[in-house]
Amino acid sequence: MGGFKAVDWREGKLFILDQTLLPESEVYREIKTKADICEAISSLRVRGAPAIGVAAAFGVVVVAREVFEKEGNFLDRIEEAVKSLVSTRPTAVNLKKAVERMMKVLLSASADREELLLKLEEEAKKIYQENLESDLKIAENGTSLLNSGDRVLTHCNTGALATAGYGTALGVIKKACEQGKKIKVFVDETRPLLQGSRLTAWELEKLGIDYEIIVDSAAGFLMAQGKIDKIIVGADRIALNGDTANKIGTHSLGVLAKHYRLPFYVAAPLTTFDFELKQGEGIPIEERQAKEVLELKGVRLAPSAARAYNLAFDVTPSHLISAFITEKGLIFPPFTESIGNLRERI
Amino acid sequence: MGGFKAVDWREGKLFILDQTLLPESEVYREIKTKADICEAISSLRVRGAPAIGVAAAFGVVVVAREVFEKEGNFLDRIEEAVKSLVSTRPTAVNLKKAVERMMKVLLSASADREELLLKLEEEAKKIYQENLESDLKIAENGTSLLNSGDRVLTHCNTGALATAGYGTALGVIKKACEQGKKIKVFVDETRPLLQGSRLTAWELEKLGIDYEIIVDSAAGFLMAQGKIDKIIVGADRIALNGDTANKIGTHSLGVLAKHYRLPFYVAAPLTTFDFELKQGEGIPIEERQAKEVLELKGVRLAPSAARAYNLAFDVTPSHLISAFITEKGLIFPPFTESIGNLRERI
Repeated sequence: MGGFKAVDWREGKLFILDQTLLPESEVYREIKTKADICEAISSLRVRGAPAIGVAAAFGVVVVAREVFEKEGNFLDRIEEAVKSLVSTRPTAVNLKKAVERMMKVLLSASADREELLLKLEEEAKKIYQENLESDLKIAENGTSLLNSGDRVLTHCNTGALATAGYGTALGVIKKACEQGKKIKVFVDETRPLLQGSRLTAWELEKLGIDYEIIVDSAAGFLMAQGKIDKIIVGADRIALNGDTANKIGTHSLGVLAKHYRLPFYVAAPLTTFDFELKQGEGIPIEERQAKEVLELKGVRLAPSAARAYNLAFDVTPSHLISAFITEKGLIFPPFTESIGNLRERI
Repeated sequence: MGGFKAVDWREGKLFILDQTLLPESEVYREIKTKADICEAISSLRVRGAPAIGVAAAFGVVVVAREVFEKEGNFLDRIEEAVKSLVSTRPTAVNLKKAVERMMKVLLSASADREELLLKLEEEAKKIYQENLESDLKIAENGTSLLNSGDRVLTHCNTGALATAGYGTALGVIKKACEQGKKIKVFVDETRPLLQGSRLTAWELEKLGIDYEIIVDSAAGFLMAQGKIDKIIVGADRIALNGDTANKIGTHSLGVLAKHYRLPFYVAAPLTTFDFELKQGEGIPIEERQAKEVLELKGVRLAPSAARAYNLAFDVTPSHLISAFITEKGLIFPPFTESIGNLRERI
């Protein structure tokens, strides 16, 4: 895989691969402070729901270490720091869950700072390892859905860059190719931040998998022309009834897939399911700066006074989804029941 | 309207407003040769089906003048030049029709070169004038479909820049606003060439009409949220059964509008109807360079080896269209009948 890691914990130091600079340059940034980790997540240097979760877990170690170097009641300060970490990106639930796990360790551990730091590091590594294992199981479980010759549309980036190391939706495609299946991938460029053409294409190039980039709006016509067999996407948060928040544009693909009777799969680990949320309406949708739509790498794309409405995510209603691909297997409708069962198996 | 003209015939000279430089700068380029007009059309310096038709009509005058300055059988040379002009952009039928009208004048006129040039100029001016009048009638006919308070989604650019001077789909919106109706416009940015954010936003700014730019893929979720009431688009070629070629992305909007039971209107002059074509399958769809998707103003957006599939247009099947807005009135289903009747009224 060309040896890259979205989140890299090396000898007690946290590095993230700066995805805003891809595909031009592979630059790792060391995360030394609370400010560093918050900035890295909010500016999408590290992105993808699972990868954010893992980065945040290690981020808590960094934050704890930073706080310990100062005086005063460190627990309060860590809790405060961690709150601002969680608020950097509200939609993906993995961030919140990973930080909550880290907080549990923090609150239950002894007061010895060195011991506490070790326990936090252990927990973050565990989160990382669990994520990696989930990825591999998701990929194995999902390949049964792909046949040799399939032309698969995907949106945004759900590969190694978006996770602990293998990928979710793109992981399923990778695994199918590793098994010798011949897959052609249509890559939605994924405006405004182009995770498709910048990141997914970059991963597929490294893997030697056949692909073509399309503008997001072309998907419907390609489906109408019979050029797409299946759609696989990732997720940022899944409610109990199966309503799924994911990168803006996913909702449109769901409607189009339904209209053209094509299978529409969502690949995600259990950490992406929000078992406390009955339906998608409760998912907070992050609205980001208009600038992301109106400018690109410093180049202005619209009149100087132009306004844009920039939702980073949308919610696809569960009735448009054919199945979820998880590390515990494939989840079919009725989702309220099958996702409920999933919850009990955790 | 801030006094601009997409196609401007000034004292026997042809100028086009270079739309590739908008919104940064308003630059008019003089079109002096066959090479100039072909390049201006193929590189989208002038674009929009009706505007291309008008530009091509004046282009034939320029070509004829250029040919006359050389020796030999000018008719053959003009015909040859005109063929390459028609082939610059295959999808919009207005180009073909305008050039055919000019060729008729050319073939029926006397052999006196000065007289012939005058007649060609007259015919081009007539085409321009007819287009302008059609625009105004389309706008008047269409406003009955818009109510004050409507939030209208549009795709690509169908304003004064795309036509002889008033616009088609955007013309309808403009006219409704002139009548005092309060309209909010959602502007699809329209990848890859951003006619929405570069051109439609530029026109709406000048007009002081309320709008927000969105990425193309956001339309479905906004419809689901009840934020869009109606969709109006233009067209590049309409078949007898109502199947409509238009900017890539229109097809997806048609499916989404159907799913959310929203009215989906196509505004176009009769010159955009191809009465010789039974259905959309026969419409040639222009495939343009991958570079348009992979680069933006010289900035690379994807890995250097990345591939893209770049269809400039798609075809929306007629069953997704609620009505056509033409200069002869509103055309409702069943379209094969109503468009057939329209043909007889020409």
